[in-house]
Amino acid sequence: MSKPPRYIGVIGQGESDAEMAAVAGEVGRRIAESGAVLVCGGMGGVMEAACRGAKSARGLTVGILPGSDRAGANEYVDVAVATGLNEARNLAIIRTSDVLIAVGGSYGTLSEIGFALKMGKRVIGLDTWDINGIVQAKTAVEAVRLATE
Amino acid sequence: MSKPPRYIGVIGQGESDAEMAAVAGEVGRRIAESGAVLVCGGMGGVMEAACRGAKSARGLTVGILPGSDRAGANEYVDVAVATGLNEARNLAIIRTSDVLIAVGGSYGTLSEIGFALKMGKRVIGLDTWDINGIVQAKTAVEAVRLATE
Amino acid sequence: MSKPPRYIGVIGQGESDAEMAAVAGEVGRRIAESGAVLVCGGMGGVMEAACRGAKSARGLTVGILPGSDRAGANEYVDVAVATGLNEARNLAIIRTSDVLIAVGGSYGTLSEIGFALKMGKRVIGLDTWDINGIVQAKTAVEAVRLATE
Amino acid sequence: MSKPPRYIGVIGQGESDAEMAAVAGEVGRRIAESGAVLVCGGMGGVMEAACRGAKSARGLTVGILPGSDRAGANEYVDVAVATGLNEARNLAIIRTSDVLIAVGGSYGTLSEIGFALKMGKRVIGLDTWDINGIVQAKTAVEAVRLATE
Repeated sequence: MSKPPRYIGVIGQGESDAEMAAVAGEVGRRIAESGAVLVCGGMGGVMEAACRGAKSARGLTVGILPGSDRAGANEYVDVAVATGLNEARNLAIIRTSDVLIAVGGSYGTLSEIGFALKMGKRVIGLDTWDINGIVQAKTAVEAVRLATE
Repeated sequence: MSKPPRYIGVIGQGESDAEMAAVAGEVGRRIAESGAVLVCGGMGGVMEAACRGAKSARGLTVGILPGSDRAGANEYVDVAVATGLNEARNLAIIRTSDVLIAVGGSYGTLSEIGFALKMGKRVIGLDTWDINGIVQAKTAVEAVRLATE
Repeated sequence: MSKPPRYIGVIGQGESDAEMAAVAGEVGRRIAESGAVLVCGGMGGVMEAACRGAKSARGLTVGILPGSDRAGANEYVDVAVATGLNEARNLAIIRTSDVLIAVGGSYGTLSEIGFALKMGKRVIGLDTWDINGIVQAKTAVEAVRLATE
Repeated sequence: MSKPPRYIGVIGQGESDAEMAAVAGEVGRRIAESGAVLVCGGMGGVMEAACRGAKSARGLTVGILPGSDRAGANEYVDVAVATGLNEARNLAIIRTSDVLIAVGGSYGTLSEIGFALKMGKRVIGLDTWDINGIVQAKTAVEAVRLATE
């Protein structure tokens, strides 16, 4: 029997510019290449870019949605969970993930970082908040390496 | 591109006798054979029996857990979501499912039936509460047929 | 020091006709007269009528809201809690209450009844679902007497 | 008719040393003196000290608890809400409050700060994280003044 896969959460905002999307896409692709499951909020921006990247490498993507309808997931989500709990779904993303990669610096991401660190989960940062406890990475390659070691 | 799969939720109590487990197992197996994703609470009893049945037919199983750790899922869950929200995870099970099959008659199941009917979701019943709005089935075969038509 | 007050939850639908509102209003008034705190979902219909009744007897009313804004509470709520959790707030209503009075028979109320009975809470029914475990009352007076004994 | 009261949330960790408890206590007392309702997580540490301070000035205190039992509230909570939602109750604290005062610097508080700023709520800081968007105060007096203006 094979070892169960690692679940890596990608957290970041729902809108992203081209540069951030490229970074998130490479994060997602490399998560998939590592054999891990990608967990995220299932919406747009960083989440969508990461899922698209993961699917380009035939990975498995899980989207835990704030709304009540699976149809709210981006098209690269394989397994969508509709919580209807609004931002409380962020806590399920953190709890479901073995380790988190935070891309960029919105307040929502800050909230998730705080909760992940409180839960004792490792948080890898890419161009994100400078918070004591985050392991800062310089590239998507390094971030996923740190998340899988 | 193929049509996205139907998500069928199986709700029922965390402990079950042999007879109920056999029914739940056949429900799970036939859900998998229909090509649908099985959604449940990821714990024991009816949930575990249904997941085991689905895996016997190589289906995909999703377990939405009350606790904070994916390790709480039964061994037949493919994708585990750790919510840490206790019974509030029941609402995510209902919202994530296109249709529900209720097996047996605990109060927790009654609560989920009420919420599903409130959400306007179709509920198929197998040896469960006699509530106006539930479509009662006599066998696992009939229940899954009703859930997939 | 005085004994801490009992918290009595009133559950029922968000719309009500005049007759149901009159019953709910009397339930609320008698809860207040008993010295108990009235807990409810803080919205309209049965909830508003019960709060109005409680305020007519200078009781304390707590509304646990589905939405994100305290302004969504009816005007007879003293302490409003904005959860932003949609129907998951129902579970907080049940857990916060020592005993529940269910007025009328919507599916949402059925869901709350199931959860309350699962939690081992006493549920008094007034013209509600005929579920094993509910203590059925014939009048508001009787319901509040049963809830306070 | 009088203007409805302001709800001021006090966020901070569940354990505190004597100095932090003194600050939180003065925050609570001055919130009560301003006529505002004090909202918090209802547990120990900063939360208990703030509630005790508020009660010393005959204020109203609301505790939104992570657990399933109102008995988990500290003894200075007037209205206890038992959510059973664990840390998801933090979101209800933020949403219920018009403005927040953050005392001290745990990761849980960071998570709440991030969420509050995301919701567009004003956050006053007392010896807390240095996050862009927080209005930093030097004393409890200044913090409550900033929270009520």
